[in-house]
Amino acid sequence: MFHGLSAFPLTPTDEHGVDTTAYAALVARLADARVDSIGALGSTGGYAYLTREQRAHAAKIAVESADGVPVMVGIGALRTAHVLALAEDAQNAGASAVLLAPMTYQPLTDDEVFGLYEDVTRELSVPLCVYDNLATTHVRFSDELLGRIGQLPNVGSVKIPGEGAGARIGALRALLPSSVTVGVSGDWTAARGLNSGADVWYSVLGGLFPRTALAIAREPAGEVSGRLEPLWALFRRHGSLRVVSAAASHLGLVREPNLPRPLRELGAVDRREVVAVLDSLGLDG
Amino acid sequence: MFHGLSAFPLTPTDEHGVDTTAYAALVARLADARVDSIGALGSTGGYAYLTREQRAHAAKIAVESADGVPVMVGIGALRTAHVLALAEDAQNAGASAVLLAPMTYQPLTDDEVFGLYEDVTRELSVPLCVYDNLATTHVRFSDELLGRIGQLPNVGSVKIPGEGAGARIGALRALLPSSVTVGVSGDWTAARGLNSGADVWYSVLGGLFPRTALAIAREPAGEVSGRLEPLWALFRRHGSLRVVSAAASHLGLVREPNLPRPLRELGAVDRREVVAVLDSLGLDG
Repeated sequence: MFHGLSAFPLTPTDEHGVDTTAYAALVARLADARVDSIGALGSTGGYAYLTREQRAHAAKIAVESADGVPVMVGIGALRTAHVLALAEDAQNAGASAVLLAPMTYQPLTDDEVFGLYEDVTRELSVPLCVYDNLATTHVRFSDELLGRIGQLPNVGSVKIPGEGAGARIGALRALLPSSVTVGVSGDWTAARGLNSGADVWYSVLGGLFPRTALAIAREPAGEVSGRLEPLWALFRRHGSLRVVSAAASHLGLVREPNLPRPLRELGAVDRREVVAVLDSLGLDG
Repeated sequence: MFHGLSAFPLTPTDEHGVDTTAYAALVARLADARVDSIGALGSTGGYAYLTREQRAHAAKIAVESADGVPVMVGIGALRTAHVLALAEDAQNAGASAVLLAPMTYQPLTDDEVFGLYEDVTRELSVPLCVYDNLATTHVRFSDELLGRIGQLPNVGSVKIPGEGAGARIGALRALLPSSVTVGVSGDWTAARGLNSGADVWYSVLGGLFPRTALAIAREPAGEVSGRLEPLWALFRRHGSLRVVSAAASHLGLVREPNLPRPLRELGAVDRREVVAVLDSLGLDG
């Protein structure tokens, strides 16, 4: 399942809880577009901010709304014991795979990061995607560390930042078993990553505009990604999460507020700019 | 209460739960030494890895074991709603103050960090210490942001990294109300910070060797801190948490394991070095 376009939807959340109706519709929208897989409760899906119960419930809704499209569920947490419980919940919900970023509070040594994956993969009955996201976890994965983790049972893919991925993919292929695919995130770099041989695009854009993202994933050498540069600039400036939150709200797919505090939706001026960019790009649904 | 030596004990934890007996004894040890305050469930106290229930129970034990020494309780969490619940639990446990670091997964804007403190301080009935810890939260507090937060109700102190504190304290004093004290952490820089006019030392050493830390806090221009340089070198190399974990275990104050996975206790070679340094410094209890 770790190939092509993996689309990461928002999990619309306010201080009262998850808007499960809106969430089911966001996932169904991805299933309608026939993305290759759905990444539920990724960074864009706000996994780090939700309780175990909210995550288990959201995972169930995602699988039920995915119309047979395989669903990968984020199981990250600061503590290994909590990750193991979340893995069990995800598998019980019918997840086809799990996604694990090494969340940190105390900075982790490489051996601690490896130990986390060792302890978790041992217990899995579905494949795992290793999530290398420096901006959120502050773990700096060396190629060597990803290569070691890639030897563990049940590892199916590694998700690396798109910046610099081109130069890195060759080195990683030499260190990873051939069964482990390499995927990129950081939407503005995805076309370049796919052109450099990445197998998967783990995509924020795809979680809201799956048909546009599929056009890039199917023909990364085409001109679609370049045309979206005004949107990519907003992703870089505000973080893609805040931009897709504003876009989903503009499209009427989520209510306001939809981000968990302390995160805040964009202010009025920034939102008008998001809407103007969506309009100019014809990203109206 | 935000002056002198604030001592931060470990919360000994394994995969089965918190060792509450050992924890009560660690806190009582600080009370016996008459530290100025006790920082329960700080970074050294592993707050980020524990459940709400475990934290509420530990806070209660800390207050009960503190023999009247004021206890500050860490209430950090990724989500504002969870911080508010933890603040309520801490106050119900009898905390004299709370400590709040802006934990992050998604990088936060300055307005989001300010919003967190605004939402939390509004609900408090005890004073709050603002916890600036770049290494764990990755939030880079400008002096201006600390100054803004310092104007909020119930803010009693700011805890800043000791590196560079000397140059920063003057600027902060000009931005903070006079009722807000400035404290330093990063034990190897504490004496310098106190000599530069810091009001408090938020201390990891003090959580295990309170009498030695008191000697430094009472006479920061003395030679004690300099003599401890071999220990400070280990703090910098391994992180102070892993070193005090090994030291507490060597003293028979905690069992093994005592850190929550994925964190790992130091390996045999590093532990022998910790013990050798403790012995050479006469830090034997």
